[in-house]
This record gives sequence, C-alpha cells and structure tokens, in this order.
Amino acid sequence: MQTIDHVRLSADETKLVILDQTQLPNRETYLELSSAEEMYEAIKKLRVRGAPCIGIFAGFAMFVLAQGLKQSTYEEFASKFRELSAYLNSSRPTAVNLSWALRRMERVVSEHAGMAPAEILPLLRAEAQAILDEDIAMCRAISEHGLSLLKDGDCVLTHCNAGPIATSKYGTAIGPLILGAEKGIKLKAFADETRPLLQGARLTSWELNNAGVDVTLICDNMASMVMKNGWVQFCFVGCDRVAANGDTANKIGTSGVAILAKHYGIPFYVLGPTSTIDMNCPTGDDIQIELREPEEIKTMWYREPMAPASVKCFNPSFDVTDHRLISGIITEKGICRAPYTESLTALFQ
Amino acid sequence: MQTIDHVRLSADETKLVILDQTQLPNRETYLELSSAEEMYEAIKKLRVRGAPCIGIFAGFAMFVLAQGLKQSTYEEFASKFRELSAYLNSSRPTAVNLSWALRRMERVVSEHAGMAPAEILPLLRAEAQAILDEDIAMCRAISEHGLSLLKDGDCVLTHCNAGPIATSKYGTAIGPLILGAEKGIKLKAFADETRPLLQGARLTSWELNNAGVDVTLICDNMASMVMKNGWVQFCFVGCDRVAANGDTANKIGTSGVAILAKHYGIPFYVLGPTSTIDMNCPTGDDIQIELREPEEIKTMWYREPMAPASVKCFNPSFDVTDHRLISGIITEKGICRAPYTESLTALFQ
Repeated sequence: MQTIDHVRLSADETKLVILDQTQLPNRETYLELSSAEEMYEAIKKLRVRGAPCIGIFAGFAMFVLAQGLKQSTYEEFASKFRELSAYLNSSRPTAVNLSWALRRMERVVSEHAGMAPAEILPLLRAEAQAILDEDIAMCRAISEHGLSLLKDGDCVLTHCNAGPIATSKYGTAIGPLILGAEKGIKLKAFADETRPLLQGARLTSWELNNAGVDVTLICDNMASMVMKNGWVQFCFVGCDRVAANGDTANKIGTSGVAILAKHYGIPFYVLGPTSTIDMNCPTGDDIQIELREPEEIKTMWYREPMAPASVKCFNPSFDVTDHRLISGIITEKGICRAPYTESLTALFQ
Repeated sequence: MQTIDHVRLSADETKLVILDQTQLPNRETYLELSSAEEMYEAIKKLRVRGAPCIGIFAGFAMFVLAQGLKQSTYEEFASKFRELSAYLNSSRPTAVNLSWALRRMERVVSEHAGMAPAEILPLLRAEAQAILDEDIAMCRAISEHGLSLLKDGDCVLTHCNAGPIATSKYGTAIGPLILGAEKGIKLKAFADETRPLLQGARLTSWELNNAGVDVTLICDNMASMVMKNGWVQFCFVGCDRVAANGDTANKIGTSGVAILAKHYGIPFYVLGPTSTIDMNCPTGDDIQIELREPEEIKTMWYREPMAPASVKCFNPSFDVTDHRLISGIITEKGICRAPYTESLTALFQ
C-alpha cells in the first residue's frame, strides 16, 4: 500500500501519525492521534497544513475514528460518523480540501446504508487511501511536466511553500526539484524566505535540504540580485487560485517575483492541480485577497532559528540599481537626469 | 545655535547626549556620554548610526573630550587629542564619515599650534557645529529638491532608512516627506520593512510616524501589490555609492523596487549628497558588495516588537500575478501556454 511519512496510519492502523509542522525546522516531532479532539487541535493549530495534506489527513482521521464505532448498529454508526465529521470540519471552516475529503468519506457511509459497520470500515480505509493515491498521482504528474523543462545544473527560484508536506509527495512548485533529485538530476534552488510567516525558510528550505537539492535561502528582497547574477534559470511557484484568463493568486510577493523574472528574461511558471483553476472567475480582479493582522509583521517574532542550521544562505547587504531604472538622482545641488554620465559630471564642474 | 535632538551637547556643554538607536522603536532612551570609552561603545554598538550622524557625533565628542585636557600645555593637549581621536576612529574603522570628521577636528588643533588649549576649545566647538550645520544644509537642500516633485496627497514608497536619525535633520530619501509635513503638505508613505535587519520597520516607520507623515509599514514583498493598487506616486531611496554612469548601490532590495516601479510606470528617484557620487567608479559592476552572515537571515530574531505600535500595516496574504507575466501554467494534465483563456478552457473539455 502506497504511503507517505508525514500523514500515515500507525502500524496497527488504530492511530493517525503526523509530522508536527509547527515544530519545523527545529524538531521533527511525530504525534500519534486517536481522539477526535486531538485531530481537531492538529488542524486548528496548523500542525497539519497545506490544503491537499489536510484532505488526506481528514480521510485517514475518519477511518481511525470509525473504528471506535464498529460495535454500533448502522444507524448509530452513520449518525455518530456524521457528527465527528462535522466536528473536524469546524476546525478550519475555510479549508476547501477539508470539507471535500470529509464529504467523500461520508458518502461511503451513506452509500452503504444498512451494512454492518465492521464491513464499512475497509471501504473507508480504501477511500482514504484513494484520496492519498490521487494526490500522489497528481503531484507526480505535475512534477514530471515541470521536470521536462529542466536540465542538469539548472537552478529554480521559488516563493513560499508548495512542497511535499503541503501535499502528499513531491509537492507542486518544488515537485520537479524533488523528483529530479530522486532521478539523480543535479538541480539547484533559491528559496525566498517569504515574509511575514517565513514558509520559505521554515518549510521549503527544510524540504529541499532533506531531498538533497542544493538550496540557498534568501530574503525576499534578494531575488533581484540573484536573478541579475545569472544564477536562476526558472521561477516555479504554486497557486491558490487561477482565474480563467490565467491571472494567478498565490502567496503575497509572487507578482513581484514574476515582474523581476520578466525584467531579467527568466521564464516564470505556475504549478498546481486543475482543481485550483476557477473557470467561474474571469480575471484576477475578481479574486478577493485576504488581509491579515498587523501583528504578523510587527510583533510575531520567533524565539528560535527559523531555518535549518545546514541550509546555505546568500546575504548581500546592498545591491546595484541600473541607471536605466532611475528617473532622477537628487543631490543638494539639484536633480540630475539621464544621461547621467553627463549630468553627474556637470555636478563636479 | 542650530541643533538637533538625537546628537546634542548637554545644557552645560560638558557632555554629549544621544538617542540610543538600538532601543528604537520600543524606547526613546537618551544617554549622557562623557568618557571616551562611553563614546567608543556608542559607535561600536550602533547606538549612534548612519554615516553623516556618526560624523556629527565625532565632532561634538572630540569637543567634549578636549574640555578634560584644557589645563595641559599645547603639546600635551595635541598629543592626547590625537590619541583620543585615533581611539574613537578604531570603533568602526570602515565608517568613512567618522574618520573624515575626526580629521577635521584634528586639523583645528594642528592649525593652531602653540595656542593655549582653553583658547582652542571654542574653535573645536565651532568646527563641530560646522559639521552639523553643513549636514543640515545638505539634507535641507536635498529635501527641498525632492519636495519640488511632490504635490499634496502624493504617496512615496521608500526602502531601508535614510531619515533624520541617520543624518542631522530631515534625512535624504525621506527628507522631502518630513520637510513636507513641516510645511503642512499632506503626504503619505509606504515603508518597506527591509529584511534582514528591519531598518524600515524599526527606524523609518518610527521617524515618519513621529514627523506626522501618514506611513504604512509593509513587508518587502508587498511593494508590488501596493504599486499595482495605484497607491504610490513616487519611489524615493537613499544611496551608499553612485557610480559615474548613475548605477546606484543601496540597501539590498533597492534594485527590485526600481524594477517594480518601472513595470508599474512609477518614477523612481535616488536621493543623496554629492559626496556619495564616486566619479572614479565607472559603473555598478565596479562596486563591491558586502556579503554578511547567514545568521542575520536564519536566527537573528527579536524578542520584542520591531515597529511602533501605532504604525499602520498593510498585510495582504496573497497577490495576483498578471497572466502576461506567466510563461506557462503546469497542471497534472500538462503545460498550458498563452492565450490562457483558450488553453485553460481546453483542460476542462
């Protein structure tokens, strides 16, 4: 049976084992969950995160919880099952994949009305596995398509986190890099730290490092210099919603990466499942953007390292702005305009 | 006598009073310094920072220290004066304005060989004042020139810190905003937080807030969205070195701001004194960029708020990337190319 490491059943299949993502990158802590309360808390506190990953979690969670109801009649079983599902769903009401996966599990129960609960259990197990398998196949296909663009030695810049722990395996935006490493192709990456919540530092650099990809962590504002230096051949990013015209909503800062990439002539690709494409949304102007608390920018500082100790960093203190991008240079003697070779010389005459 | 608040003489002129910049934005602490050791420590620990500000500090520091030597003969005075000057200079050997200001003060002593120290003291006082006055005049002129571009209601985006506390008064990049506020012109600002050391959050937003400028703090990667929304009419940045062709070295991330500004059709101006223009440096390629420790990115997190509590923040979670910036959208079904309205539709047929 195909499986993943960060959301899995325990050996005896009576518990759900998850990697606690809130402890990354400082500790790889695995938690064993058996009660609905523990599962609710894991979603709520972002111990499990990433829309596809939450869907997979929900499937196996309902299978584990259903085992405690197997002595019931079908009616009792179905009623309690729906109650537990509604409870988990309330942990993060806006997570689309959570309610989607829970509905899939509930359908298994309702489509087998009257069957003994003990006989429904293997069907629930199979459905949870199907959710996982479908996600792995989807990520694998995206990764193969992305990898087809890359050749040995290429370097990809990515923003935020669309990696294995947000999905099942491989991930989307960094899937081609992880699949490439698996196939022995030497690829490199730059990971934007992604302020304010630092998903790039905490998660992406950790994932790529673990997968054996040569990754360098940078602050978001260093991407321009890295591109200018000729170190990046592609930009790969994930997506939260793609409008029918291709306009793409993704983590704040993605549009800036795209503009820099265009300026430096670097191809910029969006990677994600077709389920992210919203054909009912004509353009990006129709996508509502979530505004979050100022606290995330002003006070939410961390008490411990926010990137793996072994991850490389590039930390230039300054960069150089090309004179063709400058409208004027204002000194105490007035405003100089292009051509600067002349106007600056005139200052000193 | 013209003065500033963040580096000044005490009322009896026997001590140097400084705003401790390491305590900003959480505490406005003023320190009274009288010994050379205290002054050395203040520079070394960045309690006083910003190249022009360090120069001003050094001038008044030498005047204060000279008072302790006034009973000496000229020879003893001159020798001890040079000793103290060399000691202060060693606190931050690469700070150009520090050694420049100390040389100016030493010249006053050497040009008055044989004069009684008590008579040299007022000359030293005048030289320190001249360093300050010249800087105020320079900042004021830059601010006037910059302000001439702005009209009531305009909003300026800035990066890093080139404000009053890094200079004497007004500052350079944000000088036009502060001068504008003084003149009752209603201007607005966005301050990039400026990772990794957060000068924009800690210092620029604090300065603009204090000056009564309507300032909003953003993470560096939010500048693209703010510009796209039409909220910014100008970008004003400082400079560390300007090459003869106009290429400008400034805090990391500045080139990215310039590229975004060009994309959105927003004028991008560099502000700084002519002393920053290096006519011996032909282009930006000839400027060496300082690389700093990975620790600044990975582990140097703060234990308290890094922006004033009253500063506004704009904290969008996502932004939208225009489809014209996207080379391809990679899904599990393959790679879609422009025109996306057609290629995305085909995915679902």
